[in-house]
Amino acid sequence: MADKKNLLLLFDRPNEPVFMEKGKAAVFDVPDKFLTDRYRPISTEVQSRFGEKAEQRIPVRDIAIPDLRIPMSLPRDAQFSLFIPAHRRIAGRLIDIFMGVRSVEDLQSVAVYARDRVNPYLFNYSLSVALLHRPDTKGLDLPSFAQNFPDKFVDSQVFRQIREEATVVPEGSRMPITIPRDYTASDLEPEHRLWYFREDLGINLHHWHWHLVYPFEAGNRDVVNKDRRGELFYYMHQQVVARYNLERFSNNLARVVRFNNLREPIAEGYFPKMDSLVSSRAWPPRFEDTKLSDLNRELDQINLDVSDLERWRDRIFEAISQGFATDESGNQVPLDDVRGIDVLGNMMESSILSPNRRLYGDFHNMGHVFISYSHDPDHRHLESFGVMGDSATAMRDPVFYRWHAYIDDIFQEHKARLSPYSVPDLSYDGVSVTGVQVSPEGGRPNVLQTFWQQSDVDLSRGMDFVPRGNVFARFTHLQHTPFTYTINVNNDSGAQRFGTVRIFLGPKTDERGQGMLFKDQRLLMIELDKFVVSLNPGQNTIRRRSTESSVTIPFDRTFRNLEASRPAAGSAEELEFNFCGCGWPNHMLIPKGLPEGLRCELFVMISNYDQDRVREIYTFKQVHKQFFLNFNTLSQIEQQLVGSCSDAASYCGVRDRLYPDRRAMGYPFDRLSRVGADRLINFLTPNMSIVDVVVRHENRVALRNS
Amino acid sequence: MADKKNLLLLFDRPNEPVFMEKGKAAVFDVPDKFLTDRYRPISTEVQSRFGEKAEQRIPVRDIAIPDLRIPMSLPRDAQFSLFIPAHRRIAGRLIDIFMGVRSVEDLQSVAVYARDRVNPYLFNYSLSVALLHRPDTKGLDLPSFAQNFPDKFVDSQVFRQIREEATVVPEGSRMPITIPRDYTASDLEPEHRLWYFREDLGINLHHWHWHLVYPFEAGNRDVVNKDRRGELFYYMHQQVVARYNLERFSNNLARVVRFNNLREPIAEGYFPKMDSLVSSRAWPPRFEDTKLSDLNRELDQINLDVSDLERWRDRIFEAISQGFATDESGNQVPLDDVRGIDVLGNMMESSILSPNRRLYGDFHNMGHVFISYSHDPDHRHLESFGVMGDSATAMRDPVFYRWHAYIDDIFQEHKARLSPYSVPDLSYDGVSVTGVQVSPEGGRPNVLQTFWQQSDVDLSRGMDFVPRGNVFARFTHLQHTPFTYTINVNNDSGAQRFGTVRIFLGPKTDERGQGMLFKDQRLLMIELDKFVVSLNPGQNTIRRRSTESSVTIPFDRTFRNLEASRPAAGSAEELEFNFCGCGWPNHMLIPKGLPEGLRCELFVMISNYDQDRVREIYTFKQVHKQFFLNFNTLSQIEQQLVGSCSDAASYCGVRDRLYPDRRAMGYPFDRLSRVGADRLINFLTPNMSIVDVVVRHENRVALRNS
Repeated sequence: MADKKNLLLLFDRPNEPVFMEKGKAAVFDVPDKFLTDRYRPISTEVQSRFGEKAEQRIPVRDIAIPDLRIPMSLPRDAQFSLFIPAHRRIAGRLIDIFMGVRSVEDLQSVAVYARDRVNPYLFNYSLSVALLHRPDTKGLDLPSFAQNFPDKFVDSQVFRQIREEATVVPEGSRMPITIPRDYTASDLEPEHRLWYFREDLGINLHHWHWHLVYPFEAGNRDVVNKDRRGELFYYMHQQVVARYNLERFSNNLARVVRFNNLREPIAEGYFPKMDSLVSSRAWPPRFEDTKLSDLNRELDQINLDVSDLERWRDRIFEAISQGFATDESGNQVPLDDVRGIDVLGNMMESSILSPNRRLYGDFHNMGHVFISYSHDPDHRHLESFGVMGDSATAMRDPVFYRWHAYIDDIFQEHKARLSPYSVPDLSYDGVSVTGVQVSPEGGRPNVLQTFWQQSDVDLSRGMDFVPRGNVFARFTHLQHTPFTYTINVNNDSGAQRFGTVRIFLGPKTDERGQGMLFKDQRLLMIELDKFVVSLNPGQNTIRRRSTESSVTIPFDRTFRNLEASRPAAGSAEELEFNFCGCGWPNHMLIPKGLPEGLRCELFVMISNYDQDRVREIYTFKQVHKQFFLNFNTLSQIEQQLVGSCSDAASYCGVRDRLYPDRRAMGYPFDRLSRVGADRLINFLTPNMSIVDVVVRHENRVALRNS
Repeated sequence: MADKKNLLLLFDRPNEPVFMEKGKAAVFDVPDKFLTDRYRPISTEVQSRFGEKAEQRIPVRDIAIPDLRIPMSLPRDAQFSLFIPAHRRIAGRLIDIFMGVRSVEDLQSVAVYARDRVNPYLFNYSLSVALLHRPDTKGLDLPSFAQNFPDKFVDSQVFRQIREEATVVPEGSRMPITIPRDYTASDLEPEHRLWYFREDLGINLHHWHWHLVYPFEAGNRDVVNKDRRGELFYYMHQQVVARYNLERFSNNLARVVRFNNLREPIAEGYFPKMDSLVSSRAWPPRFEDTKLSDLNRELDQINLDVSDLERWRDRIFEAISQGFATDESGNQVPLDDVRGIDVLGNMMESSILSPNRRLYGDFHNMGHVFISYSHDPDHRHLESFGVMGDSATAMRDPVFYRWHAYIDDIFQEHKARLSPYSVPDLSYDGVSVTGVQVSPEGGRPNVLQTFWQQSDVDLSRGMDFVPRGNVFARFTHLQHTPFTYTINVNNDSGAQRFGTVRIFLGPKTDERGQGMLFKDQRLLMIELDKFVVSLNPGQNTIRRRSTESSVTIPFDRTFRNLEASRPAAGSAEELEFNFCGCGWPNHMLIPKGLPEGLRCELFVMISNYDQDRVREIYTFKQVHKQFFLNFNTLSQIEQQLVGSCSDAASYCGVRDRLYPDRRAMGYPFDRLSRVGADRLINFLTPNMSIVDVVVRHENRVALRNS
């Protein structure tokens, strides 16, 4: 019987033929007729050449192969993007094929056959989706996308150096190749100050993973129809923009300017300096002041005008102004307080859950496509899309934030129409926060510390046609000293109570050093943590470590150092491991400070858990399982969440569960403030508190202890 | 004693460390202290690793190494361009070092030491110049530049495929990798019709070689000061533009539009789709409608405004209008009939022979630089130059021809001021051409035939960190059926006479199908051949094969298939072999036809050799030799030219000799026509003739017989 783990070997070195050594000296015994035309005539020669050194031989059964013509219609050396509808259809077909075969053994045969015939990105995506959804392949740890396709994350120069190191130096003596700190631009370009955020491996992996977990289209509607996914689209990206703006403040830059005039040249240029190892082409740059143009790209089956985007946008605005969207049957779909943002998220992104894609189109996705093709809108130059066309690379580009600032602005148009939270909506009778403090390890209270750190990631799984053995790339990223929140809470109710602790960080002043109005500051509040506490009557002291944040995942999980962090085989954790790749990287939890200190306000609120909890007993459809949840006590909650990767739930939700907070995402900052509360200080109810915090950056580089 | 031939091994695989196998299993025994910091600590390990398989070990003497700080100031992974003055200075220093060492053995030591420390392009260029000029290294056959740096000539996708072929397939079973026919753009882009011309390997190698042979700057002035080099700069490029325009006619495109308004966006975009293997960066594209901007690139020490270019141009025009330039002492340098064009060529290019670089600047060179940096004029994006910044790649870009059409237009401003050739200037008393015919092998008279051909070039010398053994790339290029000119000449003088046969081809009609005026047609006449004949009294029939053309070099020499075409060691031919890389590729002698036939006029003239011959007994300075020439008889001429690679003299001159034709280059088409001769037919004197010729293109692909 085939071992399902061997399927993972098919992700290794995506351009090397399937009969070459995979993993640690494993070789597939490929039926001759499975070989491609190039290798079939010299099958004995090449198979014995690589088979000789094998320590493990994996038999591959010769079975009848389903029709692969549609998956093979995407050239092997093309770029692949889920933003392109034609590519989604091709992927859907291959997923269906992988889902449809009877057994792991047959899946292995089909995948081995397909691997050297279909586009490597397409293969990786489709096999990943199938392995995540087939009942007989659950629990497999997919290797990190950055390890299989480092070319989407790393300076192209690194590959030449890795090739040299791996060819010249025997494994024991190899040294890590250092990725330069900022190689894409110089300080002449003000936007370049944000390189460490935009080009962070962890942030880009998070974004790729988010879109993998929340696809906007799939053959099986259940895969898309996850709880509040439209709202999560809004919230996760709103937070990204808020975080980016906070980083801008700490780099003496003003908030990002919305890209709200689609006819205006995009001032910011971006030169990614990355090469695709699959297409052997560089990711195209965008020069300064490039304009969007009408698209007519036959191969992608995209024929759209800039005015199509404008019309979609205007209809979305119209729906917001009217308070309802119109579905395909002409019925009104209310954009109300509770569900409105979710509907709007699906409309704007758009996902197949959009109430009416014919009317509201595909605004956000196609914005990415228009921007990514601005250098070659009619394909005359045979150019592929720029980094904005791929969720693994889009966040590198300054225009990503301008585009999403505009997307967010439209969402806020809706949020501004909702009634502000009243005092009862916000307060928690009998519960008051009496003190808040953050204490970094070995540092002064309320002074957070950031610095640079160097970490290593093994790229050998992605280095095609390079001698075997690990080769590490060493990259520099932001880091902060871990810290602890100490929150003093009075529970005057005389009974045990449950509360949700909500912690946000925001700037204390605007770009001019002036205090901010609530309506502006609320958009800059970044969520740091959210967790449920039990409050005994009287004084309570809550301590929480920054590493426990509900927003982030630990460094090792971001980079999937599988050997180090892999959960025990067959454990509940293992089941969920793949979902867990989604999560803001912990090393980016806190924005980079300033040498003299970035002045912030830390906001803490304890809301009434009775109003926060996801109460309903419900069935949540998943391909093969049903989950019944009924939380009654905190310990039960905790139990339920074990193994469901709840630790980055704020931006990623929880796998196969409802979003674990009934409140609107971003609560209490997702709406305008009530009358009279025009500044944060006036907004506070007794169950909230703020404290001044300073983020201090030290310009030193520390090497991660391994 | 060191064998000078081993020096050539240092060109192989320019990014691989010097201690790795070179050529056919040769290894340099490198002194430990010569190794770079990365390899010195593991010297034993790596040297024995690669030394084991060696069939030839080359001892390298441990000597004191000159100061390499200046050559090492250019980063290893930078692009290198002779258009950038700072790079020229750096190269000059390294050339001086290579020229200055005492013996071949010491040169080998210094070169081995320098090889892994200086930029590989810089190393190749400087060592090439030194080997060409040192007396003790004369006669070495430099390997083809395209073989060492295929990344400057070939689609980046080819390298991935070559890496696969070389890794997976043992040498005997390898197949050539096909370079796609037109991979840089599609037919939506009208300019793309000319891909086969602009991206031809042979044409780009010719251009690179021309600029190697005719540098515009060098530490040693004699290297620059070659006979009529300024005029040759004008003429070679004039002919390139004329040839390009003829190709445009055969692709239903109008003549190229001069880039004469430096403030206007460049309409033509170009996406080279090539990666530099040295810098691990793609050659940057140029989007459509990119404008020139003022340059401020500190690293290149270039700080120039577009208005500087404009001022230089205006001063050049002023000199032309006044009929003299002004040298640095304020003296007038006449721009007269004989020397004017040569002075102007050196002024415009400019070379160090320019009468006044402070006044006339560096117009043509800096035009290349401005265009090549238009995407990143202040280096904020850390981008290197585009293809226009390198003589090996510039001709790929449509704007090359727009720029040179403008350069040529300025030259023509001068030519238009000269008195037209009178009838006596043109005629040859007693000699008349009575008939002209061209006969392609196996074809109809006066119908030339073009088609596509595929040829292979071995790229293994340039494929760093790839397993050993030949790997061929198969590329498609234009080809024509060889043909023979038959020219009937009457010599009525009653004595033996010598004549120079001048053969040109031009279009019969303009873009609208109308007959052309001489003043327009003359600019489109491309030189096909020029040779000296002896004419007996009475009827003479001259037969000449197209392969003998004075413009072209044979295919094998273009691609330096050294094994196949190498002259006997020590022979006179070998001495000159390196010069011979310069020459228009024979496969591009004839413009691509049209299926229905491109209508052309073939022009033949026999001029009086007494007025053409280079008569003077002269000394022509060369680093270590003097040549005394005195031609008296045709046989003596032929003898003198043996071994001097005279067979592509028209565009390249003859090494260490005067340009072998005293007439103005391009004669008789370099000036306007006399009064009354406003069309070619009226221009003819009895020693000239024209015949209608059609070029027919057959859209088939033939594989070169090897």
